[in-house]
Amino acid sequence: MIVTVTANPAVDTTYEVDALVPGRSLRVSRVWERPGGKGLNVSRVLRGLGEPTLAVAPLGGPTGRWIARALTGDGHRLRVVPIEGTTRRTLTVVGTDTTVLNEPGPPLSARERAALTEAVRDALTGARALVLSGSLPPGAPDDLYAELVRVAARARVPAVVDATGPALLAAAAAGAAVVKPNADELRATTGGCGADAARQLLRAGARSVVVSLGSRGLLAFHGDRGWRAGAVPGVTGNPTGAGDAAAAAIALGTAAADPWPRTLARAAALGAAAVLAPTAGEADPRAYRAFLPTVHVEEYA
Amino acid sequence: MIVTVTANPAVDTTYEVDALVPGRSLRVSRVWERPGGKGLNVSRVLRGLGEPTLAVAPLGGPTGRWIARALTGDGHRLRVVPIEGTTRRTLTVVGTDTTVLNEPGPPLSARERAALTEAVRDALTGARALVLSGSLPPGAPDDLYAELVRVAARARVPAVVDATGPALLAAAAAGAAVVKPNADELRATTGGCGADAARQLLRAGARSVVVSLGSRGLLAFHGDRGWRAGAVPGVTGNPTGAGDAAAAAIALGTAAADPWPRTLARAAALGAAAVLAPTAGEADPRAYRAFLPTVHVEEYA
Repeated sequence: MIVTVTANPAVDTTYEVDALVPGRSLRVSRVWERPGGKGLNVSRVLRGLGEPTLAVAPLGGPTGRWIARALTGDGHRLRVVPIEGTTRRTLTVVGTDTTVLNEPGPPLSARERAALTEAVRDALTGARALVLSGSLPPGAPDDLYAELVRVAARARVPAVVDATGPALLAAAAAGAAVVKPNADELRATTGGCGADAARQLLRAGARSVVVSLGSRGLLAFHGDRGWRAGAVPGVTGNPTGAGDAAAAAIALGTAAADPWPRTLARAAALGAAAVLAPTAGEADPRAYRAFLPTVHVEEYA
Repeated sequence: MIVTVTANPAVDTTYEVDALVPGRSLRVSRVWERPGGKGLNVSRVLRGLGEPTLAVAPLGGPTGRWIARALTGDGHRLRVVPIEGTTRRTLTVVGTDTTVLNEPGPPLSARERAALTEAVRDALTGARALVLSGSLPPGAPDDLYAELVRVAARARVPAVVDATGPALLAAAAAGAAVVKPNADELRATTGGCGADAARQLLRAGARSVVVSLGSRGLLAFHGDRGWRAGAVPGVTGNPTGAGDAAAAAIALGTAAADPWPRTLARAAALGAAAVLAPTAGEADPRAYRAFLPTVHVEEYA
């Protein structure tokens, strides 16, 4: 069983319009809503592969209740940390362009943050890995994920952290098993790019570093070694959620203590399967199995 | 007491962004939510003037519950018609432009429409006027307002209808006391503009017709006569909701059987007070009383 944490979940809302024209009054022809947040996407992908997961999330207000009902109605295991604020929305407006409007989300009080830590500690009983994914709530201390990495270490559960900036750096310093920025997040965290920047995160304390590069594949670094997995060629679709699918593969590989070339190949294949899926947090297991043998992994200096 | 009906209410949500740039992922810096819908705005304005009101609205889902709680928490009298669908949202994105995204809203089943009619019939006991305002739910028959006009006629309560197209035409044919299109709605309903188009609605069966012209004032037609009220000059602000404030003044005048010049002056002054208010459905009573003596009303052929 793998535990995921979504510190700042959202109701992901999609509006279909003819075209988003600023300054106009526009008719929305269709509306979709789904539970959103990177940790919840990771749980969804893991469950699609048959791996049991427990999702931990602070939830509040009507949007929070809606997420809890939607997830448990779909058979997901969820541990809710009740909060006083109202869970945020993210809005994607699909017309001739795709535009995303991200609400900041509710801040967590010190008491609510302590309750989140306690919920994660409880959830880790019997867990094979912990995944900490996505943005922190506004005003949260930069060491929120680092603290959860330390809680996991005390429970001997490896932690995979997909975040950015000071929160990622603090998680690395707390000894995260894996930190997984994308190229932009790596630059926002270290100021650099490529192997040198990734190795900064190893020196900071992370045991492994994976950098997702979108259509240019993935890099992994552990000790003195590095590997590169090429992306599955010719896959086009919705890249949102590909990083979450890669995080799910990394969590599975970390839980099983698999060698990095195998884990990296799985991350590339699962990311490609997620690009094919119409919505974030889905990855067709058949596409994943078809892609897996096509991924090439090589040593990378 | 004046009864208002909001057939397709909404949670009016406002996002503050730096600039709405299509194709980008944007940070929302502030989020506001308020109960929305033209009938609810009319109730709010009436209540601000000390007139008791009862708002009737079909509401469903988390958004519907939120509206009910917000209104009753503010002391509004509300009669909810429970529906299976989820009450819609409208989103206003305020950046360098103001952009509005209107969700269509849930359709009402035949049973829910019958329950709405029944709720209005009950609500009319002791009412001085009925106000029917705003768009119909998607798929509703064009005679939904007309049917409520007939219900009001049987209860000897005058009905004021602020709508457009076939729904407005049907309400006129059902003998509405007043139909109140704006210039665009008049054109959408009759294909014409000005006095000739307004008199078409009288011939269709409406007892009076008011046309709101924004900064060009208001026209009223009754029998062979017509009047024009000039707008209060130099008032700038938020025009959303000015028409609802005018509808509130027309409902008060209709309830009291006031002469049209007086009602029209009040509608112009209250509309101007609504333009000064930051949000739709508010009109500062002091501004209204200050504006009222400045409004000029003349005969209009």
